[in-house]
Amino acid sequence: MATGLFISFEGIDGSGKSTQARLLAEALRQAGHEALLTREPGGSPGAEEIRSLVLTGDSGRWSAETELLLFTAARRDHLERTIRPALAEGRTVITDRFADSTRVYQGATRGDLRDTVDRLHALMIGAEPDLTFLIDMDPATALARGLARGSGEDRFEDMGLGFQQTLRAGFLDLAAAAPDRFRVIDGDRAPEAVAAEIAAIALPRAGLPS
Amino acid sequence: MATGLFISFEGIDGSGKSTQARLLAEALRQAGHEALLTREPGGSPGAEEIRSLVLTGDSGRWSAETELLLFTAARRDHLERTIRPALAEGRTVITDRFADSTRVYQGATRGDLRDTVDRLHALMIGAEPDLTFLIDMDPATALARGLARGSGEDRFEDMGLGFQQTLRAGFLDLAAAAPDRFRVIDGDRAPEAVAAEIAAIALPRAGLPS
Ligand SMILES: Nc1ncnc2c1ncn2[C@@H]1O[C@H](COP(=O)(O)OP(=O)(O)OP(=O)(O)O)[C@@H](O)[C@H]1O
Ligand SMILES: Nc1ncnc2c1ncn2[C@@H]1O[C@H](COP(=O)(O)OP(=O)(O)OP(=O)(O)O)[C@@H](O)[C@H]1O
Ligand SMILES: [Mg+2]
Ligand SMILES: [Mg+2]
Repeated sequence: MATGLFISFEGIDGSGKSTQARLLAEALRQAGHEALLTREPGGSPGAEEIRSLVLTGDSGRWSAETELLLFTAARRDHLERTIRPALAEGRTVITDRFADSTRVYQGATRGDLRDTVDRLHALMIGAEPDLTFLIDMDPATALARGLARGSGEDRFEDMGLGFQQTLRAGFLDLAAAAPDRFRVIDGDRAPEAVAAEIAAIALPRAGLPS
Repeated sequence: MATGLFISFEGIDGSGKSTQARLLAEALRQAGHEALLTREPGGSPGAEEIRSLVLTGDSGRWSAETELLLFTAARRDHLERTIRPALAEGRTVITDRFADSTRVYQGATRGDLRDTVDRLHALMIGAEPDLTFLIDMDPATALARGLARGSGEDRFEDMGLGFQQTLRAGFLDLAAAAPDRFRVIDGDRAPEAVAAEIAAIALPRAGLPS
């Protein structure tokens, strides 16, 4: 049985992950290919419930360890109920964030938990995307984009430019450690230019002409 | 700084855990000792929210793995917010169920997950009670007690006598493997007789005359 391609988008806040994930899903569909667009945290009914349990209320309500367990529960549900069934049908799955976001955000806020994050992932999740697009760009530009949007939900954006620089370095470290899986994309260009580069890499991997 | 004694009650459904946990807390308080009575799943505001997320809705709503992660998140919160602060103040903490319940219920329903249960506990929880009372008794008698009470919440009780026999054997196996921590108590007696045996063991451990 054919197994679909599993693609993730990663990058700092406001780098254009959601925009590019959507544009890639559209490009695949226009080429006649079945694509499922999903996101984390969330991506399945159960995971969305866990997401709102974590994201509502006081920011000190959950410890880093408890939050990590809750996000891992949400990821497990997302994987079982949304990602794996679609891959099993041969569809391409595009997720807006996956485990790399956990690695990088926990690394930046609670560096002492990085080893715990990796062990918990190995024990309860295991899966990695076949291909990860890291949208890399200057944090100041990305932060301005994100603040202009003003969604209000993201607590991480409140932590400012220095924090975003730490995240950027964290993502680049992960990419350097797994060069077969990652493609680092310059995000500081017009959305169409970024999308064209991504499509040229992803479409052939999904068995389509680029 | 003095550290309190951490006591758990374990056993099959309807064996008298909640009754005996309460009676022991009362006996300690009557002896002038500070005791905190708590329970799992739940035992802290965050853990109670996770408990209701798990226990409401369809029984097939969460996979065994996702449920295990959610209960572990609840246990971590319970430990951080309720158990550890009380122990740090020198109080005795009495919990109605702890990690042994997870080990035994998962062992009975998804035996292939027992190793995962142990690794997840080692990674994210670590703590064990100083003393665990296993209220052991004939499952038929305990089941009749539990059904007479008719709380309606416990999905496990629906699984019948054979399942309770498997649980009983699972608890006895754990007790045999950790004889320093466990005390196996015959629960098929009047509540006062059971309570007297438990108090005679627990009070000296808490530094009180029995
Ligand atoms: N290449 C681009 N040039 C200019 N603006 C862009 C570009 N890509 C996206 N944007 C805009 O920047 C904002 C952030 O983009 P987007 O939501 O796609 O980023 P994100 O990485 O998903 O952010 P978050 O991490 O907060 O979810 C949006 O308002 C979006 O329309
Ligand atoms: N020694 C006893 N003899 C007779 N009845 C008892 C005894 N101990 C408890 N009961 C009664 O049996 C029922 C179950 O007791 P209890 O709720 O303490 O058990 P439990 O182990 O906490 O059950 P559960 O696992 O469902 O929480 C209650 O109605 C309680 O009043
Ligand atoms: Mg986004
Ligand atoms: Mg009870």
